[in-house]
Amino acid sequence: MTAPKSWVAGANDPATDFPLPNLPYGVFSVDGDEPRCGVAIGGCVLDLAALEAAGILAAGGEDPVFELPFLNEFMELGPAAWARVRSRLTALLSEGAKERRRVEPHVVAMERAQLHLPFVVAGYTDFYSGRHHAQNVGEILRGAPDLPPNWLHLPIGYNGRASTVVVSGTAVRRPLGQTLPPDAIAPVFGPTRRLDFELELGAVVGTGSDMGTPVTVAEAEAMIFGYVLLNDWSARDIQAWEYQPLGPFQAKAFATTVSPWIVPAAALAPFRTTGQPRGVAPLPYLVEPGPLHHDVVLEVTLRPAGAARATTVTRTNARELSFSAPQQLAHHAIGGCAMQTGDLLGSGTISGPEAGGRGSMLERSWGGRDPLTLETGETRAFLEDGDTVTLTGWARGDGFRIGFGACEGTILPAPDFSV
Amino acid sequence: MTAPKSWVAGANDPATDFPLPNLPYGVFSVDGDEPRCGVAIGGCVLDLAALEAAGILAAGGEDPVFELPFLNEFMELGPAAWARVRSRLTALLSEGAKERRRVEPHVVAMERAQLHLPFVVAGYTDFYSGRHHAQNVGEILRGAPDLPPNWLHLPIGYNGRASTVVVSGTAVRRPLGQTLPPDAIAPVFGPTRRLDFELELGAVVGTGSDMGTPVTVAEAEAMIFGYVLLNDWSARDIQAWEYQPLGPFQAKAFATTVSPWIVPAAALAPFRTTGQPRGVAPLPYLVEPGPLHHDVVLEVTLRPAGAARATTVTRTNARELSFSAPQQLAHHAIGGCAMQTGDLLGSGTISGPEAGGRGSMLERSWGGRDPLTLETGETRAFLEDGDTVTLTGWARGDGFRIGFGACEGTILPAPDFSV
Repeated sequence: MTAPKSWVAGANDPATDFPLPNLPYGVFSVDGDEPRCGVAIGGCVLDLAALEAAGILAAGGEDPVFELPFLNEFMELGPAAWARVRSRLTALLSEGAKERRRVEPHVVAMERAQLHLPFVVAGYTDFYSGRHHAQNVGEILRGAPDLPPNWLHLPIGYNGRASTVVVSGTAVRRPLGQTLPPDAIAPVFGPTRRLDFELELGAVVGTGSDMGTPVTVAEAEAMIFGYVLLNDWSARDIQAWEYQPLGPFQAKAFATTVSPWIVPAAALAPFRTTGQPRGVAPLPYLVEPGPLHHDVVLEVTLRPAGAARATTVTRTNARELSFSAPQQLAHHAIGGCAMQTGDLLGSGTISGPEAGGRGSMLERSWGGRDPLTLETGETRAFLEDGDTVTLTGWARGDGFRIGFGACEGTILPAPDFSV
Repeated sequence: MTAPKSWVAGANDPATDFPLPNLPYGVFSVDGDEPRCGVAIGGCVLDLAALEAAGILAAGGEDPVFELPFLNEFMELGPAAWARVRSRLTALLSEGAKERRRVEPHVVAMERAQLHLPFVVAGYTDFYSGRHHAQNVGEILRGAPDLPPNWLHLPIGYNGRASTVVVSGTAVRRPLGQTLPPDAIAPVFGPTRRLDFELELGAVVGTGSDMGTPVTVAEAEAMIFGYVLLNDWSARDIQAWEYQPLGPFQAKAFATTVSPWIVPAAALAPFRTTGQPRGVAPLPYLVEPGPLHHDVVLEVTLRPAGAARATTVTRTNARELSFSAPQQLAHHAIGGCAMQTGDLLGSGTISGPEAGGRGSMLERSWGGRDPLTLETGETRAFLEDGDTVTLTGWARGDGFRIGFGACEGTILPAPDFSV
């Protein structure tokens, strides 16, 4: 499919993340004014709050939803409202749109926009649905690539910490914590020495479910508003010491970075594909009505402090996942867990079968054994202070791409702390 | 210490949970009107919103905080405001109070009050700091009472699901999920057959911390607004199949019940005591400035559907814990995790050394092997539909007790669900 054209500057550039068929949602401000909802288009942001106030755009609810510093109120309106707004925005922004003159004053150059966390994160759940990742981790940490016995049957997940989900560009402070040094019998306290990224997609839950009420995979698909890039920062040494028997806790609690733009599920729908086969028949509640994964290319770059150039350390694809976000969401709700507008579901680390497609430093350096050589000549087993990690991703159409913008963070030194 | 007297009906009864030295906070409504904040005193609820509106009580912030259906705004004001309000309420409710005539119209009989969840739960974290419980679980599930190697050194915890924290009295639906039957090679789907309670205390975080900023144990103590009783409902068969390697997920996500009253940390302060020794020196960041556990008697009763009488199945004490809530909170924040007003920290299941003090059915029936005989003559290995589980707890002073009210839930049958 080729992209329909837009009158907005940069929107028809084949290299933009934000052509007319994308229209991802975010929250922005200009010169320190009030953050409000917007849509990325080409090199610009369309001010949805202004369109709403001017009577050009209506989401369909009783109250305005776009003048707020989060998308939650809009998401709560549900799929019919999402479709109506998307259709209206497409019409307003198309080449030859009759209302161009009314819309044009509300288009802001992207350089002027400060981007904020686009939604209030109600709950953050992280899954583990990348098969190559799970096998790599098993081999690195436990000496065997065997999957856990439950892995093929259910999307393994755990609850993460919603309070430290931050937008791209937020600096990430190296965490302190307990670790057990090799051959030691007692733990020590200090900054992590094995700081890592994890390459993931995040699904943003738009409409919730009631406590005690299961949902089907098809219902779960309709509940998903859109997708973000997600970096599940991890401290591997803290994790190794703390995670038995109740799972990752402080090793993952210090930061999770998401892209500033939520790509609507509708924009990714043309790129649906099957994921990696699991080889066992799913229980009926996990059967997919059709392909629910996405053909999204994913890249990670690493740039040391002061370096002119970033090095690509990972390139893979979201179709390497073995459970889709709707399956994960159905599993999440099946026991009666109430799902909420603003819940964020991390896909699990996405790794391809080749070394260059591994979605974490743990895997790229094989537990630190084989450090990577960067384009600057430096080597990296894990992340150093000052390193900037950038995730990008896009689905590729005919002459256009559907992207997320960058999902980026720079490592700050550990805090100075003594008791 | 003996209790100072109050002019409110029932407040000087030695059996009340709510004498003048308690003054626990909750949210209530009467005849379906707007829920607002109140304080329990004897057989009554004092309407704080009405006192505030009448100019009798001021929390110290710019805006009213008690007319809201949650205590979060009041908690955010911090320890000085909590102390000021507590002192003022004590004066207003004391025998011989000059302002009794102004206050009396705002006292509501407890029978007329409907009690609501007292705060918006920002995040729910569950710890594992009961040593007897951890050893019992090790022996029942893994054949050995050995503690995990990290257990003595850090308060093991995991993130739970905030969206299903409910107030006492809310019915709990038996969850559906995946389980692996004994000797089976593939899982099956259906209602849990090993539904359980867990007896815990919950600490309610009143003031937060910034991302990237550690807190000390002393700072953590000052951040805790108060304590609730907490039942961490669990589905043991779902848990056994899902929990490796990332911890409990759907086995704990369907419901967590808390008492309707938050007992202020100040009310429990006279009952501070040491917990169970761990036998290893803590790392400096976990050193307590003094005893931070509480001498709180805890009981669990079970009443089958239609039974006239409940059977006491557990009686133990909160001092059986080995890490205190301030230690748990300091550990939680040490890596830079932002803590928030309204975070709820479960202590972990509290079990005493004797069989009668074990804080879950898993332990009481030793994994189902030794069902309990109830006073009705029925037996129970795990919970049945229609069972009502009630947690109570109190610190005992001289002629008075500081209680939480009941923390209760009744099991409903699993939902009818097929795909």
